[in-house]
Amino acid sequence: MNGKFVVIEGLEGAGKSSAIASVVSHLQAKGIRAETVREPGGTPLAEALRDLVKRQWDEHLSAQTELLLMYASRVQLVDNVIKPTLAKGRWVIGDRHDLSSQAYQGAGRQLGQQTLADLKKITLGTFNPDLTLYLDIDARVGLERAKGRGELDRIEQEDVAFFERTRKRYLEIAASDPSIVVIDASQPMQSVHQDILRAIEENLF
Amino acid sequence: MNGKFVVIEGLEGAGKSSAIASVVSHLQAKGIRAETVREPGGTPLAEALRDLVKRQWDEHLSAQTELLLMYASRVQLVDNVIKPTLAKGRWVIGDRHDLSSQAYQGAGRQLGQQTLADLKKITLGTFNPDLTLYLDIDARVGLERAKGRGELDRIEQEDVAFFERTRKRYLEIAASDPSIVVIDASQPMQSVHQDILRAIEENLF
Repeated sequence: MNGKFVVIEGLEGAGKSSAIASVVSHLQAKGIRAETVREPGGTPLAEALRDLVKRQWDEHLSAQTELLLMYASRVQLVDNVIKPTLAKGRWVIGDRHDLSSQAYQGAGRQLGQQTLADLKKITLGTFNPDLTLYLDIDARVGLERAKGRGELDRIEQEDVAFFERTRKRYLEIAASDPSIVVIDASQPMQSVHQDILRAIEENLF
Repeated sequence: MNGKFVVIEGLEGAGKSSAIASVVSHLQAKGIRAETVREPGGTPLAEALRDLVKRQWDEHLSAQTELLLMYASRVQLVDNVIKPTLAKGRWVIGDRHDLSSQAYQGAGRQLGQQTLADLKKITLGTFNPDLTLYLDIDARVGLERAKGRGELDRIEQEDVAFFERTRKRYLEIAASDPSIVVIDASQPMQSVHQDILRAIEENLF
């Protein structure tokens, strides 16, 4: 039987990393082997693309180019890691996936839902996570947390309006897609993790 | 007044490089400044992508990923080099452009015309060359010439059937697009260059 693909989504500073650690440890306690992957990245080529897309360039990096590099990385990861891992019956826990592009490039960069829908169809077809947990946080609060961790990359340096558009799209898509659960990430970490594990239990077991 | 964008297309070994040199020298003799660009490549990010897409990887590089990297490189080059150069009234002579993806990824990799049309619309919109010169050569003859030049990159190592599909699509598209002129590249080089310069004179002056 195929494993499950669970994705953790959210703005910078929403607490994705600790959420992933909590999910992996919960699954381990249940005897389920889970591998973690991150996007962009997760294969040698995809990690090279991650470096290119997050780096500062002297030239303008267009919104379309950013979008294409995100999908190039995603296709490599899905084909070479996620699908083969799921086929072995293991679970995959993803730090971001397609929903990030829908929100960041579609709304943050304002490329529009039709462009994103077309590109998703071309590249991923009907492949989708079994469950996505969107950690919802106010854009300013998230950015303050992210700044506290150190230097921001090219995308993290966008203005607050960029992240507010991104958050709005995350919430819009979540409202219309039952495979996405919104988690209030402004709560104390323990409550956030409780909500996450409850969503996993309710939706996947 | 905007400059003209002229693209030289063709299989490996068709003689694109010497054709480009001949076009540039012809334009110079007429007092026209022309800049040459190559795809994939032509900006720092696009050249980094050229390296990634031509390199051999231990992982499978999917046809979709190859397509996305070609377009990422193309968008960077069009936005940051080709359009600004044309706007200054200079001409741009391109070593490959969108038609290469239509032929190589669309037919060689069998991704299909609809996928290619969708991706072009998303990324380039209605931007097109003023004139494309397709240097037509038998796939085996071209590959033999290319091998004579030294080591083949990842794409050049495909089998003959790949390049035959690619050539067929080049010819099909050329037959339906009056901005593409087919040049018989099996002729002696002098005749090839004469045909090219005649096509430029007839179509652009």
